[in-house]
Amino acid sequence: MIVLGIDPGSRITGYGVLDVSGSRPAYVASGCIRIQPGELAQKLAQVYAGVAELIARHAPAVFAIEQVFLARNPDSALKLGQARGTAIVCAANHGLPVHEYAARQVKQAVTGTGAADKAQVQHMVTALLSLNAAPPEDAADALAIALTYSYASRGLLPEARRGRRRGGRQAWREFTPDS
Amino acid sequence: MIVLGIDPGSRITGYGVLDVSGSRPAYVASGCIRIQPGELAQKLAQVYAGVAELIARHAPAVFAIEQVFLARNPDSALKLGQARGTAIVCAANHGLPVHEYAARQVKQAVTGTGAADKAQVQHMVTALLSLNAAPPEDAADALAIALTYSYASRGLLPEARRGRRRGGRQAWREFTPDS
Repeated sequence: MIVLGIDPGSRITGYGVLDVSGSRPAYVASGCIRIQPGELAQKLAQVYAGVAELIARHAPAVFAIEQVFLARNPDSALKLGQARGTAIVCAANHGLPVHEYAARQVKQAVTGTGAADKAQVQHMVTALLSLNAAPPEDAADALAIALTYSYASRGLLPEARRGRRRGGRQAWREFTPDS
Repeated sequence: MIVLGIDPGSRITGYGVLDVSGSRPAYVASGCIRIQPGELAQKLAQVYAGVAELIARHAPAVFAIEQVFLARNPDSALKLGQARGTAIVCAANHGLPVHEYAARQVKQAVTGTGAADKAQVQHMVTALLSLNAAPPEDAADALAIALTYSYASRGLLPEARRGRRRGGRQAWREFTPDS
């Protein structure tokens, strides 16, 4: 069973792929999609295509992403929201259940403390997955998110919110000016 | 030539469809997609499916959306960004050029002043399209965005930013811990 963790951003989207079928999570792949500068629509299309390509390549059963509670400012929140929404809707369009974890839960899961810094997360991801080198920051964050799913699915993170595979429906209200 | 204008939101996404082939823009359809409550992924999937359905139903050649400069607060900016990114990436995935207009430009285009309020926009959209009744607010805003494209494409809005139909590419950087 493969988990795809995504750490979205308007310029760099980190990804981490883990196999969580065995007794301990095994590293499959990680890296980042560097978004080429350009118009917003084309940048979001790159995020969508990148996530779709990862789904095609690794056939994950689950998608995991960090929850955002406190964005720094409205402008960065809007940009992050656009990239984050794009990654999430790509996963939903491919029928993947989406699991969201708060940054604090992710840090807690991989380092034992919700107050850990980026370097600590990077270090622990390397150790937990027995890697020969530390992954770059964005990849490490995405692997940490995938690891959090792995621990949550084993009941080691009781407060985690679970995603459900459920079809969405929208209600239409069409305006007819002649009626 | 059909234009699809979208006014995205995390709960209600307004849409307006105009035919701009003639000497003056003609009303085709408008309304709103009411997003059913649920998990974020399912809500964004509803936005994506709704926009995709509008594209399938009306075969627009162009997609127009409001630009957001000053979001009210980080939390609402994140939510708006997620819905907005989803609508835009749906248009980009369908090969539509995406045009963005600042709220001020939209108000200026349909009312003659960038400081117009919602009711004024609603009133002028009704008048400009010779409708028998005023469309609801979200639909009126989406129609105003589509109207702005129409005026901009005729050179009546010189400062408008034009979208281009250009393929996006993403650069991959895969992390290999064993190298």
